[in-house]
Amino acid sequence: MRFDHVGVATRDAAGLIDLFGELFDAPVVHEETVDGMAVAFLELGNGGYVELLEPADGGAVADYLDREGPGVHHVALATDDLPRALDRARDLGVELVDDEPRAGAWGHAVAFCHPRSTGGVLVEFVER
Amino acid sequence: MRFDHVGVATRDAAGLIDLFGELFDAPVVHEETVDGMAVAFLELGNGGYVELLEPADGGAVADYLDREGPGVHHVALATDDLPRALDRARDLGVELVDDEPRAGAWGHAVAFCHPRSTGGVLVEFVER
Repeated sequence: MRFDHVGVATRDAAGLIDLFGELFDAPVVHEETVDGMAVAFLELGNGGYVELLEPADGGAVADYLDREGPGVHHVALATDDLPRALDRARDLGVELVDDEPRAGAWGHAVAFCHPRSTGGVLVEFVER
Repeated sequence: MRFDHVGVATRDAAGLIDLFGELFDAPVVHEETVDGMAVAFLELGNGGYVELLEPADGGAVADYLDREGPGVHHVALATDDLPRALDRARDLGVELVDDEPRAGAWGHAVAFCHPRSTGGVLVEFVER
């Protein structure tokens, strides 16, 4: 698998777009609203991204911000065969949040693994 | 800048080497002990890495594990000019943990930014 992005939960996406854009030399290449949440992707030099997640109100990311504060929310890895990746995860005893691929940001197929079975890391698989 | 790695704090590096190795198809390519801490790098398909950090006792990562539990500890971005990256960070008002580059894992020059000035993300710059 390839690194795809780190997802960062924030209450100030505009501020982080400016800061990370300058600090990492990473331009915004995609913005959208997903489940009422503002999402922006900043592109890094080797095809990876930083995803900024700013929830409007309610939902899992808003709960995360209330509980943990701003910071890294998840790590996404790219695969060319998401159903196979999910089969392998099940074989390894990994607990899946999404049993089947679903539409995520940018229209890609995604699925999440529960962090309690992956070392405390919320892992997203994405097939672009 | 390019994505270099996510650093994951754990009390079971051996278990995560096995799990992530299978789940991400990411072989271990480097292991060492840094400041009494076991460190392992698993290589992803596009030149990025997952770094596993298992502290023996005491130190910043052990404190992090006590406070936050296992999970993503930091995000590292690669630059070809670390002193220039630090100058830019200072110009942007980012608080630096390391004012000057220092030797980090794998013998590379590294410097960290304080998460309170980077959206809650502990950012490491690395010049390989």
